[in-house]
Amino acid sequence: MSAKTARITAVETYDIRFPTSRELDGSDAMNPDPDYSAAYLVLRTDAGDGLEGHGFAFTIGRGNDVQVAAIEALREHIVGRPVDQLCADPGTLNRDLIGDSQLRWLGPEKGVMHMAIGAVVNAVWDLAAKRARKPLWQLLAEGDPAWLVSQVDFRYIADALTPEEALDLLRRGRAGGEERTAALLERGYPAYTTSPGWLGYSDDKLTRLAREAVAEGFTQIKLKVGADLQDDIRRCRTARAAVGPDIRIAIDANQRWNVDEAVEWTRALAEFDPYWIEEPTSPDDILGHAAVRKGVAPIKVATGEHVQNRIIFKQLLQAGAIDVLQLDAARVGGVNENLAILLLAAKFGVPVCPHAGGVGLCELVQHLSMFDYVALSGTTENRVIEFVDHLHEHFVTPTVIQDGHYAAPTAPGFSAQMHHDSIATYSYPHGTFWAADTATTKAVTA
Amino acid sequence: MSAKTARITAVETYDIRFPTSRELDGSDAMNPDPDYSAAYLVLRTDAGDGLEGHGFAFTIGRGNDVQVAAIEALREHIVGRPVDQLCADPGTLNRDLIGDSQLRWLGPEKGVMHMAIGAVVNAVWDLAAKRARKPLWQLLAEGDPAWLVSQVDFRYIADALTPEEALDLLRRGRAGGEERTAALLERGYPAYTTSPGWLGYSDDKLTRLAREAVAEGFTQIKLKVGADLQDDIRRCRTARAAVGPDIRIAIDANQRWNVDEAVEWTRALAEFDPYWIEEPTSPDDILGHAAVRKGVAPIKVATGEHVQNRIIFKQLLQAGAIDVLQLDAARVGGVNENLAILLLAAKFGVPVCPHAGGVGLCELVQHLSMFDYVALSGTTENRVIEFVDHLHEHFVTPTVIQDGHYAAPTAPGFSAQMHHDSIATYSYPHGTFWAADTATTKAVTA
Repeated sequence: MSAKTARITAVETYDIRFPTSRELDGSDAMNPDPDYSAAYLVLRTDAGDGLEGHGFAFTIGRGNDVQVAAIEALREHIVGRPVDQLCADPGTLNRDLIGDSQLRWLGPEKGVMHMAIGAVVNAVWDLAAKRARKPLWQLLAEGDPAWLVSQVDFRYIADALTPEEALDLLRRGRAGGEERTAALLERGYPAYTTSPGWLGYSDDKLTRLAREAVAEGFTQIKLKVGADLQDDIRRCRTARAAVGPDIRIAIDANQRWNVDEAVEWTRALAEFDPYWIEEPTSPDDILGHAAVRKGVAPIKVATGEHVQNRIIFKQLLQAGAIDVLQLDAARVGGVNENLAILLLAAKFGVPVCPHAGGVGLCELVQHLSMFDYVALSGTTENRVIEFVDHLHEHFVTPTVIQDGHYAAPTAPGFSAQMHHDSIATYSYPHGTFWAADTATTKAVTA
Repeated sequence: MSAKTARITAVETYDIRFPTSRELDGSDAMNPDPDYSAAYLVLRTDAGDGLEGHGFAFTIGRGNDVQVAAIEALREHIVGRPVDQLCADPGTLNRDLIGDSQLRWLGPEKGVMHMAIGAVVNAVWDLAAKRARKPLWQLLAEGDPAWLVSQVDFRYIADALTPEEALDLLRRGRAGGEERTAALLERGYPAYTTSPGWLGYSDDKLTRLAREAVAEGFTQIKLKVGADLQDDIRRCRTARAAVGPDIRIAIDANQRWNVDEAVEWTRALAEFDPYWIEEPTSPDDILGHAAVRKGVAPIKVATGEHVQNRIIFKQLLQAGAIDVLQLDAARVGGVNENLAILLLAAKFGVPVCPHAGGVGLCELVQHLSMFDYVALSGTTENRVIEFVDHLHEHFVTPTVIQDGHYAAPTAPGFSAQMHHDSIATYSYPHGTFWAADTATTKAVTA
């Protein structure tokens, strides 16, 4: 089969779950015991070049099977598509998936079905970048502005951003791109770390990890808050004492509060100079975030990891509800929708500091921020990508952090591919880890 | 097993699909070929009284299996619960389901997982009403205001409606309830009909059905619009000619437009005196609806069938974005969240005209409006429940329409129960209808 006539031949899916709840890694005020998981897929072709597209939705355990079922519901849309055409224009697939009227009813453009679309679309971009022999950030940064605009669905956002404005932003964004590419390859993209701040960690562990973070070159850390105010005061004091006055400390409530409560609680922590308050309330509450922002200024308001699509982001920007936009690579409809979100952020002049952590989110999102730096916003000022040092060992090309920066990936693709062994071990419930775990549990209870 | 110690013993699920696309029933500008479907569940108990709880999520075909998988992911939360406690306080189950942090990640409170919660919670209310030997509307209307308030989750809405305000609304709402119950039992609750207005119908069929609707006592009909402006102008003219000047004609774009387009298109139809424009744009776009409302006044703006939860409804009300709130019985987290939405609407003085049609939505939603009339808003002024005359024959206690009104159900329960035969025939893909259909298709293509 020649590459020219190659087609997608299969969409393989995997329910992969890591037992992270056992160490309280990832514990916060809303998520006390996550088992970080991925509803994972592999696109296979008959091109004969050995290249596959890998993608996934991130979940935290139960329901990962529902997420896998949603990806499988998209299979008939993708098997049989010509690979050349698909990789040259993932936007058409993106529109076809979002536009399937029967599946659309289950959203529209939100929750399980939308994350499934994101996983499939991201797998296509992984394949496209591998075929182009470029890391995704570079494929996007070198992309023609008109082509990039063609990849964006302007439905429901054209009142805030027209295709013409997007084209203009991308054309202007290219100036100086070569210098920025060189700078990116030399220094990387600034990161911050959440590793010290999980709610389940002791104060000693918090202090130790916070000091290590500073020693490793991070200039911002993040603490989970929102379960108990007195605990939060103590933990913020501990963290501030550990890192000194010059390191930014972000705080993150993971949607724990109502609007009034968010304002009061955040103000009660103001003496520790928090840089931003993240997810103070429901990600759906645009007007609520606007009220919180008014109430806690000059502390910044950040949200995005659970913002379902470009339409909510548009309104958060229109309403002046956020200071920091935290897009997520695997929550919305994939690279195409994230292009829309980056363009909206650029139009409104709001810095993007992506959500990461989980399973493979660091691997994915670095590409989006690096594209933005090289070819759109043109700056890393007040921009940092979240970094959490968990589960990277399962990826074929894991993120590399150097002196508090993400090193620019150079391997072709979207950095989305997991090791065969990891998939075999952590597939649920029949992978070797879970099968053994079930056997042990049965032996203990017997 | 005595009723006192009875527990939930099973959650049975069914993927039920009706081949409605073959007649273009239900066709609109976004949904050209829906196969009306239900992800259906039955709660069984060991009470020995023969009573079951029935509930469902409504979908339009593909993906109904994903919706069923989501309901199954909730099974472990409900099997084993004591029936007495569950039926006396469905709010606790509601909070437990919404609060499962791992499943919450898949939303939160939106899309497939949230509709699954709604289906399960509604099944519990069906069981509760059957055990109380009352139709659900009556169980709610006779409920103590403090108990009703205890059934509402005020998280993320307390900035717009406090529990104290809700209690006050419910206490005041009771005055005159007996008279309204008598009136309801005598006259029913006003309905409007969408049956004439599907996009796939010819002008002759539109004219005939519109005239029939008026003859049957309806004072409002609805037309689907948004695919082609010239067609819409012709169809609106046809409909207005058929029904005369005194019948309200609502128009419904099913989210087809961007904000500017919604304003222009609606204005272009203004000469036919449309009563409301429904779903002019994305259900997520609160600020967009506010802009449309400003742009098309005095034509009213309506939305809700795809509004994902109470948090978006709260903002639509806060932003003055809608004139008519169209709650849906099976989109949000069930009766409990719809109590919150009815209370928000009452607080803001916006009339509720529920979305119905589909599979069993008329059967469910009538109970919510009747409760609202008897015990909350106390009025049917400018309030109508949608009626579509499809698929009622599959329900054990189907809606009864008399002189353009929904007759008040008197059978115990939530009217959610389908006939065994319907389930057996339309279960997908192995029910007798689909199995025969597949066999025919194979024979034709062979």
